[in-house]
Parts: sequence; structure tokens; C-alpha cells
Amino acid sequence: MRAQSPAPINLMPMAAKLQAGSGSLKVDENFRLSFTGYTEPRLKRAGKRFLEQLHARTALVFASRETVDPAKATLVVTADQASKAIQELGEDESYTLEVTPSGAKLHAANPLGVLHGLQSFLQLVTITPEGFGVPMVSIQDQPRFAWRGLMIDCGRHFMPIAVLERNLDGMEAVKLNVFHWHLSENQGFRAESHKYPKLHELGSDGLYYTQEEIRGLIEYARDRGIRVVPEFDMPGHSTAWFAGYPELASGTGPYQVERKWGIFDPAMNPTDEKTYKFLNEFIGEMAKLFPDAFFHIGGDEVNGKEWDANPSIQAYKKAHAIKDNIGLQAYFSGRVQELVVKHGKTPVGWDEILVPGVPKSIVVHSWRGADSLAAAAKQGYRGILSNGYYIDLGWSAARHYAVDPLGGAAANLSREEQKLVLGGEATMWSEYVNAENIDSRIWPRTAAIAERFWSPADVRNPAWMYSRLPVVSERLEELGLTHRIYQQRMMERMAGPASPEELAALRTLVEALEPVKDYSREKLGQEPTSQTPLNRLVDAVDPESEASRLFSSVVDDYVAGSCRDAAKAGELRGRLVQWAGNDARLRLLAERSFLVKEAGPASLALSQVAEVALGALDRITQGVPFTPELEKPLVDSLKTSEMQAHKAQLTIPVLAAFQRLLEAATAGGACANAK
Amino acid sequence: MRAQSPAPINLMPMAAKLQAGSGSLKVDENFRLSFTGYTEPRLKRAGKRFLEQLHARTALVFASRETVDPAKATLVVTADQASKAIQELGEDESYTLEVTPSGAKLHAANPLGVLHGLQSFLQLVTITPEGFGVPMVSIQDQPRFAWRGLMIDCGRHFMPIAVLERNLDGMEAVKLNVFHWHLSENQGFRAESHKYPKLHELGSDGLYYTQEEIRGLIEYARDRGIRVVPEFDMPGHSTAWFAGYPELASGTGPYQVERKWGIFDPAMNPTDEKTYKFLNEFIGEMAKLFPDAFFHIGGDEVNGKEWDANPSIQAYKKAHAIKDNIGLQAYFSGRVQELVVKHGKTPVGWDEILVPGVPKSIVVHSWRGADSLAAAAKQGYRGILSNGYYIDLGWSAARHYAVDPLGGAAANLSREEQKLVLGGEATMWSEYVNAENIDSRIWPRTAAIAERFWSPADVRNPAWMYSRLPVVSERLEELGLTHRIYQQRMMERMAGPASPEELAALRTLVEALEPVKDYSREKLGQEPTSQTPLNRLVDAVDPESEASRLFSSVVDDYVAGSCRDAAKAGELRGRLVQWAGNDARLRLLAERSFLVKEAGPASLALSQVAEVALGALDRITQGVPFTPELEKPLVDSLKTSEMQAHKAQLTIPVLAAFQRLLEAATAGGACANAK
Repeated sequence: MRAQSPAPINLMPMAAKLQAGSGSLKVDENFRLSFTGYTEPRLKRAGKRFLEQLHARTALVFASRETVDPAKATLVVTADQASKAIQELGEDESYTLEVTPSGAKLHAANPLGVLHGLQSFLQLVTITPEGFGVPMVSIQDQPRFAWRGLMIDCGRHFMPIAVLERNLDGMEAVKLNVFHWHLSENQGFRAESHKYPKLHELGSDGLYYTQEEIRGLIEYARDRGIRVVPEFDMPGHSTAWFAGYPELASGTGPYQVERKWGIFDPAMNPTDEKTYKFLNEFIGEMAKLFPDAFFHIGGDEVNGKEWDANPSIQAYKKAHAIKDNIGLQAYFSGRVQELVVKHGKTPVGWDEILVPGVPKSIVVHSWRGADSLAAAAKQGYRGILSNGYYIDLGWSAARHYAVDPLGGAAANLSREEQKLVLGGEATMWSEYVNAENIDSRIWPRTAAIAERFWSPADVRNPAWMYSRLPVVSERLEELGLTHRIYQQRMMERMAGPASPEELAALRTLVEALEPVKDYSREKLGQEPTSQTPLNRLVDAVDPESEASRLFSSVVDDYVAGSCRDAAKAGELRGRLVQWAGNDARLRLLAERSFLVKEAGPASLALSQVAEVALGALDRITQGVPFTPELEKPLVDSLKTSEMQAHKAQLTIPVLAAFQRLLEAATAGGACANAK
Repeated sequence: MRAQSPAPINLMPMAAKLQAGSGSLKVDENFRLSFTGYTEPRLKRAGKRFLEQLHARTALVFASRETVDPAKATLVVTADQASKAIQELGEDESYTLEVTPSGAKLHAANPLGVLHGLQSFLQLVTITPEGFGVPMVSIQDQPRFAWRGLMIDCGRHFMPIAVLERNLDGMEAVKLNVFHWHLSENQGFRAESHKYPKLHELGSDGLYYTQEEIRGLIEYARDRGIRVVPEFDMPGHSTAWFAGYPELASGTGPYQVERKWGIFDPAMNPTDEKTYKFLNEFIGEMAKLFPDAFFHIGGDEVNGKEWDANPSIQAYKKAHAIKDNIGLQAYFSGRVQELVVKHGKTPVGWDEILVPGVPKSIVVHSWRGADSLAAAAKQGYRGILSNGYYIDLGWSAARHYAVDPLGGAAANLSREEQKLVLGGEATMWSEYVNAENIDSRIWPRTAAIAERFWSPADVRNPAWMYSRLPVVSERLEELGLTHRIYQQRMMERMAGPASPEELAALRTLVEALEPVKDYSREKLGQEPTSQTPLNRLVDAVDPESEASRLFSSVVDDYVAGSCRDAAKAGELRGRLVQWAGNDARLRLLAERSFLVKEAGPASLALSQVAEVALGALDRITQGVPFTPELEKPLVDSLKTSEMQAHKAQLTIPVLAAFQRLLEAATAGGACANAK
């Protein structure tokens, strides 16, 4: 009876099985929480956090901030037994939640399920005509995939611990259970090493995590049912290592922390035993620091130039009959994997580590795609998918949502082979994010990805997802995430002292635009570096414009109804008039602020295309269709305007809807004679 | 040449002397800071904080996060010598700041002036057509008053350390230099005592500051040029002490932490030597914990009922010829002051401590008013003013701004007597604030009060203040204060899942209303307690509605121009139409949410009065004045509507402007025949 309940059930991820009834459980200041069965300090902390989050949701001041005995409790939580001391892949994460008007019961095999169930309960708390309440539901829930991750690249832009903590809070809320901590890059080495202190001292510009902070974050994650998998990318993506230890490199140096983005030449020397001696010590140290069973060694994007330029490496290849750099990397990778295994861990690496003969125990992390993952599974390798979940590329939630770890070639795998697909990870590469705007690039879209990883495969209706996403998004910000408020602050910086009208116009612009997609930002404008300030309009617009999405869906409805719905026409007109006049309202501000001025072409483009769309709407409502000859230059003008917007690295996402309006308004189109 | 500069100078508090030129100093990623002259770790930390704040303002990534040698610096800071190890009242806080297109120089006698000057520089950074910059200025600045305080009542509602820290950041930004920490109340005893642990254990519901946290906060404040003056209120306002130590009380108990607001009977027993023995130990402990030279002993609002009901106290009074409870309190106060002095501190207390014969060293903290302060000064007592700066009462910034510590009877004091008026304190009593909305009750209005305390007396034009206040307000939120974003979060809680249109309508309502003023909230609706959730519309509306203030000022301009400005009429009409139709847009939401429903009468009232004002505007623009007979019931209807709003503890601040419109539209009024 999913989603057929009287009140909308705003869970995300949606539960595997959910039965909703009428009536609800009242949540007021007398709300009390009780733990029975197995208990541990982590559950006590979870209870405290739960009450704090319930307070944040409701502002209720609970009579008791302590847990009480079950007979007096509103919500009784029962765990059967402990989970593993060090959280393991594939532990039981299931829970059941029964809410009735007289009380609620949460039951789970172990604390992991309890954590998930508490978050479900919190998501269900809503406002009613009589007070706060939880709708009557019966939930049986467990994840579809065991590996549900979020990777944050702390190498390119360092992220303070507070940023990571609030994102772990967000992960807990949507039941993600792996934090993949990308700790080294050409642009920065971020983990303190006692064995090799020059790694962080010379490789980080002073921006690194102390071992104490790392241990603290792991504890913080464990409290939230989240494993922490560290990644140290080798043999490429490693310039920052060489700032302190140039002897590891294949080139002659000198090396310093890279400031630009891209793929660079420096790579470790796979032919020098000193490299492995170093890595043995280093991995040993890190294997102790990070308790998780998995250890990510990267392995992606080695261009081989340093290897080709080094005569002794060339000689080594010849001597050992290694025919190319792929073979050389395979050799390196094999050696490093041995070290990882020696120190008690299971290696994880990007697609490149999958070469003939590599042990079946490794896990392939696919940036290349589901087909690559399927091929690995066919050979008996476990894998996790990130292709399709690159949240740095500016895709819509729906586009990520449509990607399935068991999609593509994986759909044809046998049931046993499919079990080798452990799940997936959203990957937050950090060329264009800093502490200020990173949350907005992760949330709320990652909640949709989390649903893909947790919920049954048939939970995939994007409209339903979009009906719940704004609610989840609001609730994520209650936890301290800043993916919505960042925009106001960034707009105010761009504007400087400005009138309320000017700020409103800037908001209209910001809310209508999106950053250019995929990797096109690099190709537009000045080459960015790690010192480029992220204060431009492109840094302040959401990856997915909600205003544009809503407008486009009204256009679709309007056209589908042969454009006879006057109310919808009025709604479209209102918005188009606003956009058409917006550039003029920003003119004075653009004269005062270089940051608003820079976005000028995009602002003008938006107003111009809105004018074109208004013309189409006029034709429709007047019943005077365009001739195809009239329509064509108008469609072309949309493209020209989009190119204008690109100058500021921006895109106008409503253009497709505008084009649909134009087509509908043209002789033979759906609305050509609507009137 | 104050404020005659080409670019507006958005300083607050305004500098004592400021000369502005044309041209500006560029602030880009090559910005560098240098300290010369006297230096200390606090200055180093201030430099780091300065660069972080400059980053927050601009998002620039500075090439060097370290300070550099003066020859390479953009801003060279020079301090002549150290300030006192423990910050003292009346230390030199002056600084000079010279900004030229080629660089800036900040000079101060000691680190206190440096801290102030750095904040001035930060306030001056603004966006320009070419990038970020600081306008060319020459500033010589020093405070008018030496005691510029903010009191936060952490007794009635506990405020987490993070809340206090961000408010200390705000205080630094506007050059306030005393944090008055109100630590004990009937509703809570908030400081850890090792000597008497039951004070915090039984008197705080577990919500107290450890001594380590207290030391940390004092250090945090000192880093920002702020003294911390603790207050332990005695002999009244002390129920929470008695939860652990009923033997201190004059009544028979039993005592527990008070949950209601108001003035209560429990009071310490001034006739029992055990009381003074206890207080001697306690004050000794706290005098060591708090390094400041001043120690606030409260002393306000003792109703004497417990004293009257205690036969042994009555007997003591008789035996010692103490004729009334005022005398008894004076005796108590004298004894406590002796203890404070014995432990090396200067006593501060509310008006009540000023009784004949009290030593001249005490400081009178006036909640009663400037006249009381003047009377004290005439007798040779030092004083600080809080009457007029009670920011919990919901007054406008302008109303606080108009109050001067040397106003009223103090204006007639001799120059020497005036020197006894040390300054003032904004007081944030916390019946109706918690961690979520307290910032909004403090800021931005306290920035205007801070200007009153710092800037020359003739800086008092409210229009000029209001032109700078929104800019300062934005910048205060950069520091982590939440006085603007809290509203969005609270509205979303009130609304629950809602459409963008519904949220917009709720915003329109919230932005138009204010909480009822002064102490009228207690008299309306259910009696509130410390458990009353602060989640209602009244908790989410700003004390001063900016939308209403701006609307009212347009009305004033419009009427002053005999209502002949059609653009202004259009502007007024647009807003009135929005308000008039707003209640209808909220109806469905009110059916779903009890919190929106509760505000229903106020919402209806706003729409009704806007309708009345629209009628007046119509009369004006049509040139058909009301007869006085027609006008009167309309004016009455405004009052009726205001009473409606009061039901939800709200007030409609534009009513006065509406009434002015009505009057102007009536035969004989300013706009009766405008057309």
C-alpha cells in the first residue's frame, strides 16, 4: 500500500515495505524514549541525538532528556544483540517500526538497524492540525545494497572536520553507510603521518587532519552506522607526496604541491624497491589508524609520461619483459595490494586495478561504468559503482536516480554474479567546491542516490522522488547542512550593499540558472586553480534549479493539454514576465559589482529567451501560430543565448521547455490553434 | 567630512573622526598582513581570524595565510605596547587607520585598539566594479564610553557555549567590550562549583557551564577585547540555589528549580551567619574563576514575602532595629559587598544596592533609568545604564538608539559627575529566547546600541543608522550569527511540507508582523513556562519588521508630498494588495498546521487592515476624501484588528502608517484632494 496513505509519507530512502493506516501518534513535550534488549553507549548517544533532532524538528522541550523504562515510553527501541565492534560490510541493517496512536516500537537485530529506524521515525514526524505527530505505519525495512557510500575529495580542496561531520549527519539521515575519504591528491596530502611527517608538512599547505582528528571522525561515523574507508591514490595523483619525498617519484623534480586541476605527469617509481619499503611502512601506519577492513589505493589516471622519460624505468621494463605502462602499473598495483593485504586489509581501487591475474579478493570501484562492473563480476570480482553518481558534474537528481548499480550489462548477470555488485558511491570531486558551497553540490541530490542504493529497485518514479526530495532537503538542513542557506550568503557577497529589489532580482537570476555540466567548466574562461576564489554566480547556483524544473513541468502539462488551460498559461506568463524584465533590474547592481557584472551575459540571455517564450505564449493564446519560417530563427536564438550564458560558465535549464513552447506554437504543433 | 565620501562608509559604530577620499585599496589574493611594534600571541590569533573573516567576506584564497614583513604587506599593523594582562575598565582603546590606494596602516597604543581597528577595516571592505576594495579613509577613533556591554541571561534559558561564542564574535565586530554573564536565576544555576556542587547538579537540569568551559569562554572573550563580568543574583532570583542548598533560603521549602516566569518569593536568609559563610566560600571560588575586577551581585526584585513569613527573621529585624525589608536587603547587600571586596573585586549591582552609606567604590547598574543613574552620580557613584537597552522588549533599533547614558537628568550633570557614567549594557533577558532565536533578539539592533556607546553623541540620526544597519547585519551573519536565517528554519517548521507559494505567503505574514512589546506577552494566552516550546509565529517574527519600517517610510514621504507621487502610490498599492490577499493564500496551510492556524487571527487582521488602507489610497488617488464620519469607524477597525493580532501575541507595526493614510485621505487631511 506504499504511498497510498492519507498523509504523504516523506521517507527517503523509501522503506522496503510500508503499510500506512489512518490516525497518528501524538508527539508532544511528554515524548519519552526507551531502550530495551541489548544496549551500549553508542545507543545511549543515539538516543540523546535523536531527542536533540526531535527538538530541532519541533522545538518541543521534553520533560525528560533521559531515556525511561519501557512502560512509560512513547517510542520503545529494542536491539537484539551487538553489531560488530568494527562495522563490517554486509552486517544486518534491517529494522521494523510499528507506529500506532498509543505508541511506537522500533526493533532491530543490532544497533545498526536501530540507527536507521530512528532516522525513519524522525523523517515521519510532521505537523498536523492538532500538533506534531507521526502517521500510523508499519515498516519492515532493509537495504538493497550493503555498500552505500559518499566519497568526499579532501585533496583538491581541504574540508574542515566540521564540514565532514555535518555531512556524516546527512549520510546517517538517508542511511548511507560508507564514507570514502579521499585523502591524497596532486593538490594536497591531508592525513598526518608520524612515520613520514613531510607528507603532511610539505604536502598540505598546513591543511591536514591530525591523527587525533581522524580517530575522532571515525568514531563520529561509527556512532552513525557509517564505515570510513580511506583512499590514498597511487601511483598517480600523487604530486603532493613528492613535495616531501621526491625520491618516491619517477621524475627528477623538484616537486611542489600542484595548484592547477587536471591529470599530471608525476607518478611513483614502480621499479624502485625503496618505493615499496616506504609504502609498506606508510600503509602499515594508516592500516592501524583506519580500522575498516577495506583500504582504497586509487590507481586511476596515470599518464605514464614520467615513466617514459626515465631511462632506468625503461631499462627495468625491458629487463622484466613488461611490455607497456599498463603492465608496469599492474605490477605496481600488485605489489601495493600485497602490502595492503599484509597489513590486514582488503584493497579497493578504481577500474584500472582490474588486470589479469589480480586476486579475487580485491574490490573494483568503477568510475568507468556499469558495464565495466558487470565484466568484473563475470570474472568473480566484487565491485561498487560510481559512474553515474558523479555529483560534481551538475546532473539532475532524476538523472542520477535513473542509474542503477545493477543496470546496463549488470542486469544480465546471474543472481550469484549480481551479489558481487556491492552497491555504489556518490563521488564529490572538489575542484569547484569549498567549505562554503560543498553541501549544495552533495545535497539534496545525494538523498535520491541514497534511495537508489537502499530501496527496492522498483522505487524509481522520478515524480514521486521529487515530491519527497524538498521535504528531505529541509530536514537535512535542520542537521546543520548548509546546502540551501549558502546561496543567500553568496548572493549577498556578490551584491554588496544593495536594495531589497536588487537582491530579489539577483535571486531570480540565481534560481533560474545552473552551472555548465560535466567537465565543460574547465574549457570556459580562465584556467582555474586551487587559488581561484569560488565567489562567482556559477559557484552560487544550484546544480539543479528547482524553479526551472517546476516551470518546465508546467510547460509539459500545458502543452499536453493542447494549451487550453488558462490558469497554467497565466502561471507561465507571470514567470516569463519576471524573467524577461529581470536583466533591467540588475543593471545598476552590475555597474557596482564585478561579480554581478561577470554574470551579465547570462542575465541578458535569460531575459532574451524569456521574451522569445513570451512571444510563443502570445501566439498560442491568440491562436495565431508561427510559420515554420518564423519559428526557426527563434529556436536558433535560444542556442545563441545559451552560448552567451556559457561565457559565465552558466546554463539556462528552461531552454528545452522554451523550445517545446515554440514548437507547440508553430503551425502543426500541439497548440498551434489553442486560443 | 563624515559620511560625505563618494562610496557610503558602512561603519557601525561610526568612527569618532573619519576623512574619506576618492580611490580605493584593492583587496585581492595577494593581500598580506603584517604586525610590527609590540606583538603577542593574541595578536597573532587576531591576524589569523582577520584573514579568515576577510576570506568569508570575499572568498579570496590568500597566497599567504601567515603574516609577512611590513615592506610586503597590504595592511601594516602597529601596536606600541601591551595592554593589561587582565583587561581593565578604561584602558586605551583608540586606534588610527590610514587607507590609501597603495596600502593601509593601522596604529594603536595597544592590542585593544588593534582589535577595534581590524574590525573597522573589515567593515570597510566592499565590492567594486573592479574587485574587492577598501575606500580611501583616514580614521582616528576611540570610544565615548569605557563600559559597552551585552548581558545574556543564561539562567532562564540555558545557552550553549557555541551561542555565546558567536555572540562574542558579534560583540567584537561592533566594538562592545563587556560580556555580562547572568549565571543564576530562579530557573537555573549555570556555573559549575567545586565547593558547592549541588548548586549546578540540582539547580540546572544538567545544563551548566563547566569551569573549563568558563575559562575557555573568558579566553575567547579576551582574544576579542572583551571583559567577562559574571553575575550571581542575590538575595532574590535565587530559587535554583535552594534546590541544592535549601538552608540558604528564608522559607521552609522544599525548593526545586522554578519553571514559570515572574518574580518569586524565595530569597536568601540575610539573618543567618551560615548564609555569609557559604557566600564567602562561593564568592571566593568564583572570584578566582573570573579574573575581571568587577563582580555583579544582582540584588533586584526581592518581594520580601519569605522574610515576612519567617519568625526568626522578623525577630532579627526587631532585635537589630531594621525597620523594613529594604533595610534588611541593604544589610544583606552590605555584607555581600564586603565579601566581594575581600576577594579582591569591585561589586556591581542593580539599582537596589544603592542605599545610604554604601561605599563609593560600588557600581550601580541601572534598570530603572538615566535619572536614577544621574542621582547616583551626584552622590559620587559610578553607574552603567541598561534601562532603554532592554532588547527583550521588542523595541525598534531607533528607540534604543535614541537613549543616551548621558540623557535625561544625566545631561545636567557636571563634567566630573558625567565621568561617573561608565556606559551601558544591552540586556537580553531570556524568557522568550532559546539557542534558535536568541540571535534575532540581539542583532542587528544591538549594533545600533553599540554605536550609541562608542560613537560621539552627535552621531544620532536614525535614518543614517538605518542606512548602515542592514549592511552590518549581513556582515554579522558572516561571523556565524543566525539572526536572519533562523526565520526560514522556523517558518518551515511551522509550515511542514508546503508549496513554494504557501511558504511565500507565510513569509509575507512573518515579515509584516512583530511580537507584542514590553511585558504584554505574559498577559496574553496561556501562562508560559520554561517548557513552553518557542515555535510559534511570535517566536519567528523579528522584533523590528524591516518590511513595515520601509513601507511606513514610503507612506511618510508620500503624505509629505501631498500624495502626488504616482510611483510611490503604485509601490504602496502593490504591497497593500499583497497583504490584503495574503490571508486567503494561507488558509489551506492553516488547516494543516496548528502553528499556522494559531496565527490565523493575526493573518486575517493584517489582510483586513490592508484592505482598509487600500480604500484610503483609492480615495486619495481618486480625489474623493472620506468624510470624518466615514473615517472614524475605519480608524476604529484598525484598533480592533490590532486586538485580533494580540490573540497570537503579535502586533501589526504598519497600523500607525495606515492611520496616517486614513487621516491624509479624510476631508481636511494632507492628501484629501490629491488625485
